Amino acid sequence: MRAAARLAGFQELETPSVESLELYRVKSGEGISSQLWGFQDKGGRDVALAPESTPSVARIYAERAKAEPLPVKWFTVSKLWRYEEPQAGRGREFVQFNLDIFGAAGVEAEVELLAAASLLLDQAGAAGLYAFRLNDREVLESLAKLLGATDRPRFFRALDNRRKVPAEAFRAELRGAGLSEANIERLVELVDHGPEGVDPAESTAFLAQLDALALPEPGPAGVARLRRILELLPRTGIEDRVRLDLSIVRGFDYYTGPVFEAFAREGDARSLFGGGRYDRLIELFGGPPTPACGLAIGDMTLELLLRSHDRWPEGEPPLDTYVVAVSPELIPVAIEWVAKLRRAGISADGDLLGRSLSRQLKEAARRRARRAILVAPREHARGVVVERDLTTGAQRECRPEELLPAA
Amino acid sequence: MRAAARLAGFQELETPSVESLELYRVKSGEGISSQLWGFQDKGGRDVALAPESTPSVARIYAERAKAEPLPVKWFTVSKLWRYEEPQAGRGREFVQFNLDIFGAAGVEAEVELLAAASLLLDQAGAAGLYAFRLNDREVLESLAKLLGATDRPRFFRALDNRRKVPAEAFRAELRGAGLSEANIERLVELVDHGPEGVDPAESTAFLAQLDALALPEPGPAGVARLRRILELLPRTGIEDRVRLDLSIVRGFDYYTGPVFEAFAREGDARSLFGGGRYDRLIELFGGPPTPACGLAIGDMTLELLLRSHDRWPEGEPPLDTYVVAVSPELIPVAIEWVAKLRRAGISADGDLLGRSLSRQLKEAARRRARRAILVAPREHARGVVVERDLTTGAQRECRPEELLPAA
Repeated sequence: MRAAARLAGFQELETPSVESLELYRVKSGEGISSQLWGFQDKGGRDVALAPESTPSVARIYAERAKAEPLPVKWFTVSKLWRYEEPQAGRGREFVQFNLDIFGAAGVEAEVELLAAASLLLDQAGAAGLYAFRLNDREVLESLAKLLGATDRPRFFRALDNRRKVPAEAFRAELRGAGLSEANIERLVELVDHGPEGVDPAESTAFLAQLDALALPEPGPAGVARLRRILELLPRTGIEDRVRLDLSIVRGFDYYTGPVFEAFAREGDARSLFGGGRYDRLIELFGGPPTPACGLAIGDMTLELLLRSHDRWPEGEPPLDTYVVAVSPELIPVAIEWVAKLRRAGISADGDLLGRSLSRQLKEAARRRARRAILVAPREHARGVVVERDLTTGAQRECRPEELLPAA
Repeated sequence: MRAAARLAGFQELETPSVESLELYRVKSGEGISSQLWGFQDKGGRDVALAPESTPSVARIYAERAKAEPLPVKWFTVSKLWRYEEPQAGRGREFVQFNLDIFGAAGVEAEVELLAAASLLLDQAGAAGLYAFRLNDREVLESLAKLLGATDRPRFFRALDNRRKVPAEAFRAELRGAGLSEANIERLVELVDHGPEGVDPAESTAFLAQLDALALPEPGPAGVARLRRILELLPRTGIEDRVRLDLSIVRGFDYYTGPVFEAFAREGDARSLFGGGRYDRLIELFGGPPTPACGLAIGDMTLELLLRSHDRWPEGEPPLDTYVVAVSPELIPVAIEWVAKLRRAGISADGDLLGRSLSRQLKEAARRRARRAILVAPREHARGVVVERDLTTGAQRECRPEELLPAA
């Protein structure tokens, strides 16, 4: 996934694991999550193990903003900690892969994020297993206005929980948020637009439905962004995996425009990653006004998804060459071969336990080596080695220089 | 460095960052380092941010020992924490790259570690900048006996500090450890054998000197190990970087055989990495008796070394292709090209800011792209793009399929 992020022109940034507790107060207000692992360091300062990377990334960007040519495209691979009950897909210590773009106000940045995330997920083996759900915070805000939500946070929360509760509970929450029965009907119809699943033509029809609502400000700009994103996505080859979904809210308060989540196409609806635009966050951390958007992919839900499709890489990666010393006095020669192959960029290993020929060949098979090179007394005396293809069993004698790639 | 470790047949293992405080008591006894960042978790347990990886690796190995075919070759890349004054080459949060081999009793394992460490350091850009110093704990133990050290810990500490204190202070410490003046002279002569620097012939002469001492048990086995290591090293091509040095002790108590450190060849003598054999550690953690050895490379001293030789990679890695949209309506086509190139394994990027042609080309230069692909209206209408070599400035029209590697 790191390699894929570099292909996509993102640069790796390292974030600290121990941050001042204050950093999380800035973003979340006084109510700090009970899941935060806070403690006092030996200097008596309140610190915490980072529960997410975005505050660190935003702080670092705010500090460096003047020095960085725009746009800045960073990725982080950070260990993070949340003190919660460990369960399938959630651990107290986990890794998050973040992508962030600073300085780009247009939705080309969101398209870039979704395309890069696809490249990363496909690289990790998840090709075909996931889809994105896309929404816009300003569309949601104007919907709240249009539909008469008097308790906006509750309205948002109801949408956010919609997939986790029965239809009746969803309606009850909307009622609690101040919506009339007629408006609840309208919203349910909008949220359930078209058949489940991804269909570009259906998305276009849905955008026309949103247009027809004549949303108050700032809705129309949000609809225009969604339209432009859907227009550009086919260029990245991922239009087959994006669906508009008004129930995507994203928990954090700081999102200001498009928001999105990725889900497994089948089975558990747990989010694979989420993200969106947060154009006001850098200012919160003392930096200049900076358009920004990002997303975070968690390792544990991705692992669950890959495992459930038998795509999790088990065991060690296969070796290219296993070098066998046929008799003990040839161990030094075998060591020499291993070193030469590695220096030529070929993964290679040899025996460290003084094993017999047959047990060395067994080990070569266990390591799934493509070939074995046998260093044997008579052949060694004649300046050749034996190369054995471990798939076909075919053997040939060859001169040492044939084993290494041409310089 | 990860890629180099995989070439050398090591498998990545992830270690937790938060460990039970108990883990560090097991290894170090009751006196836990004052540099440990300990705290209580929300369940009231005493935990600590890991200050080194070896205890975690050993604990995990001890738990899994029965399931792992031998030898086990693991590498870890772990964030670690020590609460000490930050200074050049030392931070409170740092990264350590560990290599460990379990199940191999012979010094082929040490040779493997030194060869793999060389591969890693060379890969990181340090080729030619470092040398290893090699010793053996059993040689040291028998030297202590032979020379009449009555206070063995002090004798070891004196040797360990030898490079950090003036010659007179070294002698005073040896005196304090119980050595006679004559034996102090003998030891100083042994420690200062031959000219500074690496010389395989001189190492061989030094081994003969050690033989002539007629060391008591367990010294001779240690000398035999050093001899065998020096005999095998030329096979790995790194004999030009190893020197025997009786002042290499290694702080940890758990080493049982060969020990080694790497230093910069010039300037600051600060250790780049250290390691050795610890055949009794796995039992300490409740596992079966297991021969084992390992080493740990710290990121900060390595960074200092590379920076002091202008080998630290500054800025982002160069991009292969920057795709330029010559007019705004061609942005979608540029996005399409970027996506296609990346999917073909070519690092590619395009503009996210709607910039002019000249500013896009400036950005391409800043990103050190090898080439630009210009999507221009007239050429686009004819189904071609312009490829510009950003080194020579040469341009040519080409058909899209020419830009992608043959499938």
